[in-house]
Amino acid sequence: MNGTPAATDGTMDDFQHVTVIGAGVIGASWTALFLANGLTVTVNDPLPDVAQRTREQLREALPALRALGLPTADLDRALRFEADLGRALADADVVQENGPERLDFKQDLFARIEQAAHPNTLLLSSTSGIRATAMARAMKEPGRLVIGHPFNPPHLVPLVEVVPGERTDPDTVARAVAFYTALGKKPQVLHKEVPGFVANRLQAAFFREAVNLVHEGVVTERELDDIVTSSLGLRWAVAGPFLSFHLGGGPGGLPHFLQHLGPALEDLWRDLGAPTLDGATIELLSGQADFGATIEELESARDEAQLRVMRALGGG
Amino acid sequence: MNGTPAATDGTMDDFQHVTVIGAGVIGASWTALFLANGLTVTVNDPLPDVAQRTREQLREALPALRALGLPTADLDRALRFEADLGRALADADVVQENGPERLDFKQDLFARIEQAAHPNTLLLSSTSGIRATAMARAMKEPGRLVIGHPFNPPHLVPLVEVVPGERTDPDTVARAVAFYTALGKKPQVLHKEVPGFVANRLQAAFFREAVNLVHEGVVTERELDDIVTSSLGLRWAVAGPFLSFHLGGGPGGLPHFLQHLGPALEDLWRDLGAPTLDGATIELLSGQADFGATIEELESARDEAQLRVMRALGGG
Repeated sequence: MNGTPAATDGTMDDFQHVTVIGAGVIGASWTALFLANGLTVTVNDPLPDVAQRTREQLREALPALRALGLPTADLDRALRFEADLGRALADADVVQENGPERLDFKQDLFARIEQAAHPNTLLLSSTSGIRATAMARAMKEPGRLVIGHPFNPPHLVPLVEVVPGERTDPDTVARAVAFYTALGKKPQVLHKEVPGFVANRLQAAFFREAVNLVHEGVVTERELDDIVTSSLGLRWAVAGPFLSFHLGGGPGGLPHFLQHLGPALEDLWRDLGAPTLDGATIELLSGQADFGATIEELESARDEAQLRVMRALGGG
Repeated sequence: MNGTPAATDGTMDDFQHVTVIGAGVIGASWTALFLANGLTVTVNDPLPDVAQRTREQLREALPALRALGLPTADLDRALRFEADLGRALADADVVQENGPERLDFKQDLFARIEQAAHPNTLLLSSTSGIRATAMARAMKEPGRLVIGHPFNPPHLVPLVEVVPGERTDPDTVARAVAFYTALGKKPQVLHKEVPGFVANRLQAAFFREAVNLVHEGVVTERELDDIVTSSLGLRWAVAGPFLSFHLGGGPGGLPHFLQHLGPALEDLWRDLGAPTLDGATIELLSGQADFGATIEELESARDEAQLRVMRALGGG
């Protein structure tokens, strides 16, 4: 997917020390990716068992990192844990923040980060739900903060949505893009802040109709999943929705497609469902949530298949 | 994707002669797949240049058929053209119909097909928009007709949605599934007739929000496509939306995910756009429809990448 060589790109020189704030699932996955790219990582998390949990997740990420062609020997030599925020930030070139998704918490956190970090430290938040504009409100220099929202798990899936706030400095955006690109990711800068950014909004739209179709008894969850993996998923792994319809329009491309099939598409739009996730619906959906193996087995099978697809497409 | 060996499966013995009615893009693609699976095909289409156009599309499908591991030598030895419907149906074990998407046309056509074909001929329609219940209304034995709706192009993408009408015979459904399975496809039987069936409804829901995000200036078409191919597309090629959220829920799986993230999902649902495809919107979308290469180049690059992904996943 991405031809940029990880770690060998010169731009990584500016990003040798990363401080990961909050080592839940996302923070630990970022940590694994940073370490495998030769960076040193300081993890800042108040939980007493953070070192043990992070090392465990690091071990779980090793097969994927290896399959991505990254070195995985002695990764935790470059890993340390520091519960004091000020000390954790002392050497940071980059901060990747993954704390609780509460506005007041993040506003306060970034005001403190700003005070403790070097003036040049790149400040990135993994938030999936809070705008940089709001998050930076208590900062003296809000231009330093930008959102770098990964698609889970960050060590595996290429996309990072880079979402500037109203006051984010263009140079901060450029440095975020350079950092993620050097890591072998596919950063995409959004032009506006909208709730859910782009990928999660598209996913939500898709899932709403998926819930509707299962709720209406048209298909089961597993049948719907099979339909997706044998059609739309395969297609969208290689061509997004606009290119797909461009190629569906014959020689006239997307303009012809929209003129010709637009009315049928609008008819479908009017017919789409608008389910709610009330108790009965959650019960129905939960009752079908049998995917034939344990979560660990399913996850490792998925990640392995994902890596095969990425290699087939020339990434990883 | 599908472990069933094409053409070597015994069930193909019942389906040696296929009559393809209507040889547009879909009909010609089916024809290529049937021929490469060793079947004989009679094409029935009133257009005077149908033989030339079909042979041209057959040639264009050869690289994909070869990549799927199917024999491609002398395919048109088993291909004939017959403009008279009665004569075209004389030897048919299966009919795959791809005529104009007009209810009156198809009702009349299937009444005539029923009269001319053997009583045991399997009757399949590629329609993407008309219910079997309505289409079979003028038939004496509506139980013989079932929809076999492919995802374009049928010779490449595995999914076939098998959609019975209210009066479709269960044996007809079973034979349709056996036929498509023997061809190496992934048939999926739907439990209810709904407009657009499943894949096109999900695609429509996704595209509606894609149009909204481009219309609102959050991303361009190419940026949105890049976001999809580097995240959701990769993911849904290997795990559908329900399994994906099952694995996103931690040890508690989908039930935990829905309890925990359901409210945030419902917030996003409320915020999704509801664009219309009016003239100005079509103009905006058409103006961005520059994908950096000709449609032929883009299509062949997409098909090649698609085949690499399918091989990586063990299909094709």
